[in-house]
Amino acid sequence: MTHPASQALAHIADIVGSKGVITGHDQEPFLTEWRNRWPGKAAMIVAPGSTYELSQIVKHCAHHKIAITPQGGNTGLVGGQIPFGHEVLILMKRIKTIHTICPDSNTICVDAGAVLEDVQNAAQEHDRYFPLSIGSEGSCQIGGVISTNAGGVNVLRYGNMRDLVLGIEAVLPNGEIWDGLNHLRKNNTGYDLKQLFIGGEGTLGIVTKAILKCFPIPQQTQTIMAACPDSQSVISLLSLMQNESGGQVSSFELIMRPCIDLVLKNIRGSRDPFSVPYPVYALIEISSGQGLDLRNVAEGTLEKALAQNLIQDAILADNETQKKAFWHIRHHISEAINGDGRGIRHDVSVPIAAIPEFLEDAGVAVEKIAPGARPIAFGHVGDGNIHYDILQPIGADRDYLEPFFRTIENTVFDIIDRHHGAISAEHGIGYHKCDALAARKSPIEINLMYAIKKAIDPMGIMNPGKLLKPTKENTK
Amino acid sequence: MTHPASQALAHIADIVGSKGVITGHDQEPFLTEWRNRWPGKAAMIVAPGSTYELSQIVKHCAHHKIAITPQGGNTGLVGGQIPFGHEVLILMKRIKTIHTICPDSNTICVDAGAVLEDVQNAAQEHDRYFPLSIGSEGSCQIGGVISTNAGGVNVLRYGNMRDLVLGIEAVLPNGEIWDGLNHLRKNNTGYDLKQLFIGGEGTLGIVTKAILKCFPIPQQTQTIMAACPDSQSVISLLSLMQNESGGQVSSFELIMRPCIDLVLKNIRGSRDPFSVPYPVYALIEISSGQGLDLRNVAEGTLEKALAQNLIQDAILADNETQKKAFWHIRHHISEAINGDGRGIRHDVSVPIAAIPEFLEDAGVAVEKIAPGARPIAFGHVGDGNIHYDILQPIGADRDYLEPFFRTIENTVFDIIDRHHGAISAEHGIGYHKCDALAARKSPIEINLMYAIKKAIDPMGIMNPGKLLKPTKENTK
Repeated sequence: MTHPASQALAHIADIVGSKGVITGHDQEPFLTEWRNRWPGKAAMIVAPGSTYELSQIVKHCAHHKIAITPQGGNTGLVGGQIPFGHEVLILMKRIKTIHTICPDSNTICVDAGAVLEDVQNAAQEHDRYFPLSIGSEGSCQIGGVISTNAGGVNVLRYGNMRDLVLGIEAVLPNGEIWDGLNHLRKNNTGYDLKQLFIGGEGTLGIVTKAILKCFPIPQQTQTIMAACPDSQSVISLLSLMQNESGGQVSSFELIMRPCIDLVLKNIRGSRDPFSVPYPVYALIEISSGQGLDLRNVAEGTLEKALAQNLIQDAILADNETQKKAFWHIRHHISEAINGDGRGIRHDVSVPIAAIPEFLEDAGVAVEKIAPGARPIAFGHVGDGNIHYDILQPIGADRDYLEPFFRTIENTVFDIIDRHHGAISAEHGIGYHKCDALAARKSPIEINLMYAIKKAIDPMGIMNPGKLLKPTKENTK
Repeated sequence: MTHPASQALAHIADIVGSKGVITGHDQEPFLTEWRNRWPGKAAMIVAPGSTYELSQIVKHCAHHKIAITPQGGNTGLVGGQIPFGHEVLILMKRIKTIHTICPDSNTICVDAGAVLEDVQNAAQEHDRYFPLSIGSEGSCQIGGVISTNAGGVNVLRYGNMRDLVLGIEAVLPNGEIWDGLNHLRKNNTGYDLKQLFIGGEGTLGIVTKAILKCFPIPQQTQTIMAACPDSQSVISLLSLMQNESGGQVSSFELIMRPCIDLVLKNIRGSRDPFSVPYPVYALIEISSGQGLDLRNVAEGTLEKALAQNLIQDAILADNETQKKAFWHIRHHISEAINGDGRGIRHDVSVPIAAIPEFLEDAGVAVEKIAPGARPIAFGHVGDGNIHYDILQPIGADRDYLEPFFRTIENTVFDIIDRHHGAISAEHGIGYHKCDALAARKSPIEINLMYAIKKAIDPMGIMNPGKLLKPTKENTK
């Protein structure tokens, strides 16, 4: 697309008024993402004050074939929220009302610009639980969480964002407002259109409002840190824990020993939960209503696990402080990696049973490409989701691995393909994995995606160059 | 579409061979549906023996613009599986292998023609639970269950069929086989295309295989029949039961007194669980793993419910016989209604909190149209799904209400719209509700649906006249 005419941009400024236009240095935070991989550039940055204003902007952009990139809290990890030139960058932060929470129906109605943590807190005020929880919850917005189908630490029990959305409202690429605000648990009236916008990464329209599911607050929680001999044991432990607790496992996180070492080294106030190191750890949370003696269930399961050699040691959190200490380790792994170097990071998934083999295969392959490089693996193993990050060899420069970036990524993706995994488990495709998606999905599937893109966004103005590679048809 | 040339049909016979072609009187069971509302007619009926054969047929039909209607177990209630003239009716019953059940990953890989009950049993043999359960499970097929996004009695805990499908394989309208057999819990690699085929009622392609979720078998179950003063109490009881059990309610069925009367009258071997009649009943099932004293939870909750006047009496099933007796009532309501007349039946949903008002409003409206007509309401109240059936006044002919059919249906649908409900909760749109959908959905949403239909099935050969009304473009 070519750069929009200044007259066309001036009209957008008229729609949003002066407080809706972001200029000069104020633009910076919206053009930089936290890994600093993709510096952005926009024809204009606006923050509409209402869905109506947004629809007017999109209508105008459609008329003038001006490209649009929508942005939530700018916490995306694959560059999906970053404009690269001629786009109007649309910030959703002013459309952020939390409308209603209905405890009887277990639903929340919320605008796209609301911050995830505010939604969690609002639910709690109404004695309800909104379970989606990710590292960026203090700044990410519901619209972005929906558009990327975010995951996090509670997916095992409550599902991805897709599973938590009952209905949405969206501004379509022609500027029309589609009211798909279903709040029903059962609604079999035609194609489930919202599913295209969930995880659609803003390429089919802009989500403006949503009806979300919420749940009764779990009345008790037991957190466990288990030390295991290998990753296979961790998987068997998950299965045992699910069976024994009757499916009450809400989080089940894999932490390989190198993660603990990095956290101890780079994050102040960290300590090893055990007195000796172990090869692998599982951070487990089970939660339930009253009536169940949760600690008893946990202890009984761990005894069985010990007898089966699935664990070597385990600690049950006795109080909130201990629970927080366990989660402190998990939540700081990413930051600890940053402290040690410029990691090559992968957000991938494989069938749960294939995790040990994937870790083995990837480790061997990486060692061949860059001898001494350190694989740091952790993640939501209950969902088959591994964050597989590679750090430079000890003693090498922070940027030592940058020349190997594509080779390592392609190799890891090849191994993922061999295990019928996904090259993006929860972060999405965005700009970063656009080429990889095109190269690795079947042509039949890619064609279906283009057909849908073309049907809903015939001019290709919605977040071009993200998720799907631009075609001749939708670029000029 | 015009009737296909006999030469074109002969080629289809060649593809499937003689045992794949159904002729003469053998055709009857596939052209009649169980409510006998829509007598079918097909240009040809074939049962391909493999997905490859099916893809060859579809490719051929696409080439000759021959319309196709896919059929599973022929248990649909809205005519979606019935051809009305020039279609080739495709039976999926020969493509029915249950491929693999992986207890570690909690997944099942199964062909579309497999019968639901066989899948449930196969899961059980591997110590796993496939939760979808509907009245027709002994004959309905997985492909149909996916294409209609079936519901049933366990939706509250485990979700609709949509929530139980990880991946699908489908033959597209051009005959290509799309392998979307994802078996991952997390996969954020582009548009979630399977969602269009789930609940797509065969209008976008034919589902041929699926990867389904399964679960650990619940280790204990408690069944309760509660007698309540009114429908509002039933809803409050649901909320109380969910809170107290920590979300362990798997079924929660509303049964209005007239249902019990009909079952007692028309179904041999039925008895009233209580010694006196009550206005409304809730049939409840809670289930969990070991460790929880489920009976204790149930008794504690019912005591609280009694103190809050939410229930007037309740019986906890002491054994399998008593449990079966409770479910016997629920499962025979539909048959009992048939025994009394030709009911006007509605499968609708409203927000849970609006159920009492819906029942009140609909009762008043129906009485105005046909004084003395008997509303018989029951359903999956935990999902807001009400089966709202109307029988002729006592003493009137079986067919007495037929002239009022459209008026009553439209009136009930108007009330549903007023409560922001759905005119189809779990049965789908099919042929029956095609016009109602077109009239009641917003033009924006209908246009989106047509755009998708056109993008994936540009010639409109897949199950024409179902779900979406035919347009000039996709009929000739």
